[in-house]
Amino acid sequence: MQLPAHGSNPDHLFKALGMEPPTKMVDFSVNTNPLGAPRAIKDHWQGWLEEIEDYPDPSALELKKTIAAHEGVAESHLLPGNGASELITLIARYLHGKQVLIIHPAFSEYESACRNENCTISYHIVHPPNWQLEKGALQQKIDAVDAVFFCHPNNPAGVQYDRLTIDWLIDACKQSKTLLVIDEAFYDFASNPVTFIHQAGRSRYLLVLRSLTKMYSIAGLRLGYLAGRAELLARIQISQPHWSINAIALKAGSLCLKDHQHSEDTRAYMTGERKRLFSFFRKNDFLHSPSAVNFYLIRDPSLDDQQELFMYLLRKGLVMRHTYNFPGLEGTWLRAAIKTEAENNLLMGALSEWKQGN
Amino acid sequence: MQLPAHGSNPDHLFKALGMEPPTKMVDFSVNTNPLGAPRAIKDHWQGWLEEIEDYPDPSALELKKTIAAHEGVAESHLLPGNGASELITLIARYLHGKQVLIIHPAFSEYESACRNENCTISYHIVHPPNWQLEKGALQQKIDAVDAVFFCHPNNPAGVQYDRLTIDWLIDACKQSKTLLVIDEAFYDFASNPVTFIHQAGRSRYLLVLRSLTKMYSIAGLRLGYLAGRAELLARIQISQPHWSINAIALKAGSLCLKDHQHSEDTRAYMTGERKRLFSFFRKNDFLHSPSAVNFYLIRDPSLDDQQELFMYLLRKGLVMRHTYNFPGLEGTWLRAAIKTEAENNLLMGALSEWKQGN
Repeated sequence: MQLPAHGSNPDHLFKALGMEPPTKMVDFSVNTNPLGAPRAIKDHWQGWLEEIEDYPDPSALELKKTIAAHEGVAESHLLPGNGASELITLIARYLHGKQVLIIHPAFSEYESACRNENCTISYHIVHPPNWQLEKGALQQKIDAVDAVFFCHPNNPAGVQYDRLTIDWLIDACKQSKTLLVIDEAFYDFASNPVTFIHQAGRSRYLLVLRSLTKMYSIAGLRLGYLAGRAELLARIQISQPHWSINAIALKAGSLCLKDHQHSEDTRAYMTGERKRLFSFFRKNDFLHSPSAVNFYLIRDPSLDDQQELFMYLLRKGLVMRHTYNFPGLEGTWLRAAIKTEAENNLLMGALSEWKQGN
Repeated sequence: MQLPAHGSNPDHLFKALGMEPPTKMVDFSVNTNPLGAPRAIKDHWQGWLEEIEDYPDPSALELKKTIAAHEGVAESHLLPGNGASELITLIARYLHGKQVLIIHPAFSEYESACRNENCTISYHIVHPPNWQLEKGALQQKIDAVDAVFFCHPNNPAGVQYDRLTIDWLIDACKQSKTLLVIDEAFYDFASNPVTFIHQAGRSRYLLVLRSLTKMYSIAGLRLGYLAGRAELLARIQISQPHWSINAIALKAGSLCLKDHQHSEDTRAYMTGERKRLFSFFRKNDFLHSPSAVNFYLIRDPSLDDQQELFMYLLRKGLVMRHTYNFPGLEGTWLRAAIKTEAENNLLMGALSEWKQGN
C-alpha cells in the first residue's frame, strides 16, 4: 500500500486510506508546541481586531526591532517572511537553476521549492544510529554545488550536532563559496539551544532560517525570518510580495519573542517528556533517534518497514508521520511529536499493547 | 521638490518631507472601505483565537467553496492568495522574461513585479478627459506582447468601461494568444458592478484578479483570488509558498462574502458621496475623473502640476495620493479615496479655502 504524503491534515490521510476518521484522534505528525500559544496572545487578541483594517507595515519595522533585540543581531541582517515556507520559496527563487545539495533526511520543502526553480538537486544522506555528517564525502559534495540546505536540529530525527561540527560545515561552505542555509526551526526546543544566527550577518555564504510558528504555536498566523548579510537579503527579498506578512502575525510575533518564560517552560517540559518517552522506548524494545527537540523518530526493530505499526496506531486514532518521502528513511522509521503528557501516555499505552500482541 | 512614493504610510511621507505629522490626519491615499469591516467579523473575532495554533488549510477549500457559490464559478477555476499582491507576484513569475503591456495609468505593482522577473514592459496610456482605449493602437500593441495588465475599473481614475469595450479587449487578446489579466480589485464599489470573472474559466488567455481587502476593509489580513482555467492556475500556483494564506484570513474571507448587505450598503453610500463630491467639484471649478468607484482623480485646472495643492492639503493633515509615478498622469492630478461624510466634508472645506486664497 502506498501511504499518501501528509502532515497537519489527518482528515485527508484517513480519507485517502478510505478510513472513517475516529471521533478521538491525536495528531503526532504536527510539530508545534503542545503547551500552546503564549498566554499574552490570548490577552491581547481582542485588541488586535482594530489591526485588520489597515495595511500591515510592509517593512515589519517593530517586529525586526524586537527580533534584533531578542537575538542580538542587527535589524539590517533580518528579513521576516510569511512563514518559513515563504522564505524557503524566496531562497529557491534566488537559487534558480543552480546546483543544490540537501543534507537528508530533512524537511521536504527545500527540495520541492528548489525543483520548482529548476535547480539540480543532490543529496548527502546521514544514517542512524549515529547520524554522522561524514566530513570527507560531504566536503566533496559541497565543492560541487552552489548551495546547501541543512536542517539543524534536523527534522525528522531531531539530532543536534556539536558546535564544532557545524563550525566545520560553515567553514567548508565558506571556503567553497557555497551558500549554506541552516534551518533552525526547532533549535529553541533543545535543552541547550545551539544557534549560528550570529555568524549569518558576518558571512555572505550563510543564511539562518527561523520559524516562530513552532515554539509559539502560531502556525495559523504564519511567521518566520531569515538572518544574513543585508545585500544577500535584499536580493532574496526582491521576489517577496508587498505586505506579505499580515498585521496579526506582526503583532503576535513581537509579543511572543518578549515572552521568555514560555520558551523556558517549554524546554523544561520537553526535557522531562523526552526522558520519560525514551526510557519507555528502551524498556519496551523500540529504537528512537537521539532527538534533542520536540519530536523523534521511532521504530520497532522487529520490522524493517514500519507501515504495520503506523496502521495499527492510526486505527487507534494516533496519527504518526510516516517517512516514505524522507530520503534515507523510506518508511523504516515513524516520526512523532512530543505532545501533552496525557497524549504521550496514550501513545505509550498503544505501543505496549502492540508489543504484547506481536 | 521630489515627492516620495507613498500609499497607506502617511507617517513615512511626512518624515520624508521633513514635516511633523499633524495630530489630526485623514489619509485619502488609502482606497479601503470607509464603512469598515463587516460587523460579523467583529462578532466572530474572539472565536477565531483557536484558529491560530493549527496550520491553515493549504488548499483553502472552504474559502474556495464560498467564492464559487458567491460568484457562480467552478472551484477549480479559483486560486486564492495572500492578498492580490501575492497573486500579481505569481503571475509575474509565470511571465518571467516575457513581453508585458500595461494599460496605464494603473496600479504600480504590475510593473514592479514584472520588472523583477526580467519582463520587457511597454505601455498603452489612456488620457483624460475621455480615457478612451483607442482600439487601433491598442490592437497593434497587444499583437506584439505576451501579456496585458488591465485594471478595471482603473486605479487611479476609477473609470469603468462599457461591457462591449472590454469584450472587444478580451477578444483581441484571445485572437493574439496574449494573456489578459483584468484586475477587478474595485469593481464591487460601482453602482452597477461589471465583471468578467465568468469568462475567465472559459479562456486560456484570460485571468481575473480580485481583492477582498478593499470592499471588506481587511487589508491587514491579506486576501485575494485569481479566476482562470485550472491548467493555467496550476502553473501559476507552482511558485506559491505552502500555507500562504493565514487561518484568520481564510475564516474572515468566507464570512465577508456571505455578507451581501455590507457591499450593498457600501455601493449605496458611494453613489451618494460621489454625487455630493462631484457636484461640489464642478461648482468650485475642480476637474475630476468620471470615477464609478470609491476613489477619483482631482485637479485644479489653473495649475499644471498639482504639487502646490498637494502640499497645501498635506499641511492641513489631508493626505492625497500624488500621481508622479503613474505614467500618463505625472503629477497633473491627485487621487483621493471617498472616505466618511465628515472626512469628505473636511476635504471640500479645505478645497473651498484653497480656491478663495488663489
